[in-house]
Amino acid sequence: MISPAFTQLYDIVEANLVSNLPKVEADAEVLGRAMEYSLTAGGKRIRPVLILACCRMSGGRIEDALKFSAAAEFIQTYSLIHDDLPAMDNDDFRRGLPTNHKKFGEDVAILAGDGLLSAAWEVIAEDMASCAADPQMLANKAKAAYDLAAGTGVRGMVAGQIADIGSEHCLCSPEKLDFIHRNKTAAFIKACVLAGAHIGGADGALIGKLSEYGDCVGLAFQIIDDIQDVIGDPDKRGKKTGGDAENEKSTYPALYGLEQSQKKADELLEKARGILRELPKEEVLSDLVEYLQKMVR
Amino acid sequence: MISPAFTQLYDIVEANLVSNLPKVEADAEVLGRAMEYSLTAGGKRIRPVLILACCRMSGGRIEDALKFSAAAEFIQTYSLIHDDLPAMDNDDFRRGLPTNHKKFGEDVAILAGDGLLSAAWEVIAEDMASCAADPQMLANKAKAAYDLAAGTGVRGMVAGQIADIGSEHCLCSPEKLDFIHRNKTAAFIKACVLAGAHIGGADGALIGKLSEYGDCVGLAFQIIDDIQDVIGDPDKRGKKTGGDAENEKSTYPALYGLEQSQKKADELLEKARGILRELPKEEVLSDLVEYLQKMVR
Repeated sequence: MISPAFTQLYDIVEANLVSNLPKVEADAEVLGRAMEYSLTAGGKRIRPVLILACCRMSGGRIEDALKFSAAAEFIQTYSLIHDDLPAMDNDDFRRGLPTNHKKFGEDVAILAGDGLLSAAWEVIAEDMASCAADPQMLANKAKAAYDLAAGTGVRGMVAGQIADIGSEHCLCSPEKLDFIHRNKTAAFIKACVLAGAHIGGADGALIGKLSEYGDCVGLAFQIIDDIQDVIGDPDKRGKKTGGDAENEKSTYPALYGLEQSQKKADELLEKARGILRELPKEEVLSDLVEYLQKMVR
Repeated sequence: MISPAFTQLYDIVEANLVSNLPKVEADAEVLGRAMEYSLTAGGKRIRPVLILACCRMSGGRIEDALKFSAAAEFIQTYSLIHDDLPAMDNDDFRRGLPTNHKKFGEDVAILAGDGLLSAAWEVIAEDMASCAADPQMLANKAKAAYDLAAGTGVRGMVAGQIADIGSEHCLCSPEKLDFIHRNKTAAFIKACVLAGAHIGGADGALIGKLSEYGDCVGLAFQIIDDIQDVIGDPDKRGKKTGGDAENEKSTYPALYGLEQSQKKADELLEKARGILRELPKEEVLSDLVEYLQKMVR
């Protein structure tokens, strides 16, 4: 558990996750089962919680961000399913369970990923279409949709993924590693922060500050994930430790060593704290920083 | 060439296709190359042309539908890349060229597909975000976004794909075949018709008629594709003939025989003609019907 304040939003996310997945017809039922399997396989739901928290912090109502929040977790889950495929990371386990293709076969897993990504945009489009009577909200949501699309697309997450698979079996340059981290993980986390803020009606100054917070936390998140692959407990992580080294992946610890990586994470989290001090109080955002801090060592 | 009127819109689609693909950074350049490779590998561009034609027919300006039109072709291209993968149809050639994974490898092809689908929604979201000053247009586009998302998602194209892979090596029931055809192909084509109409500001009556037209043409399109796999010229198609029979795919000809399939296609096209007679003249829509008619025998 990250914190009581986080759990409060986590519970709202959980209650609105599977229920927002478009229902598939009987002739496609395996698609529905495969999508739900990965969607309910656990996870901290950091991205959807960030959307809700940033919407609330910006003066918006959590109800207005529920669909985007579910959509963000659909996108996160699709990316994990495709990332685990034999042609990609070839992982057999994820969060302690067989990966989607191990359970349903590779063809179904590819389509379950495609289905979740499509479902994300179906839910977002439906949400926007239902806002026609509130032009300001609709305009805010269009901005939020753009945040999410850009952060998870070919100038965001997908770009990070392609650079990541290209970086195996060779130690890449610091610039390339920065590109991978910024795009593979940080871009999506930042996009959730901004999407929530836009739905909540944040002004330009708040968007600017939250954008910086998203950068810091997003980058720290990936560095700490790399650190945990070295020092983490496989039982707690639900996947084996040392997988990055085994795949000769370019990571922060591989490039800078463990100690320098921890120092970089400390710095980013300290910067995030500084940004939050200038913003309206939102416990979830500071709780996330302290949760990440605990995982640095 | 389908017709001069069709070509006029086709040219507009071509001029706005690659230019609307979000530019990837240098560290992800193979992603950009892989997406462009499949995007520029030819194709009749029927879906994006339908968006433009239906927007114009509904009284809208073609310029307002350009981004959605490009996005539709991104979605179509992603679906072909993933469909060709070894775990799916395992095709080596598409439109006379090596398939994406044959050219770039399976990992890149998976991500090129994910990238194109993400790019579609990035372009649509950006287009909507830029409409904030025109609430009516933004509301119309939100409806169009929902049309496209639903038609290509887990209650549309992706559902058809999953039922299709489940139908190999066994002759499926007429109901199941109908489900596959309605979803795999017709849902997306109909979605393009409706999306164009919504962007153009069509009223409910016109939407209703165009929805019927989309059903007829979409279903006829898939039946004729099945027929062409039996009687077509491999050189003209850019892929081998007889692939469906080889994969023991459930198709109209497999289930009903060639003659009955041709009769069904004739009926659907005749119904489409009847619908068009009740609508404002839009040559492209009738030209498409006559083009499909020529391929029935």
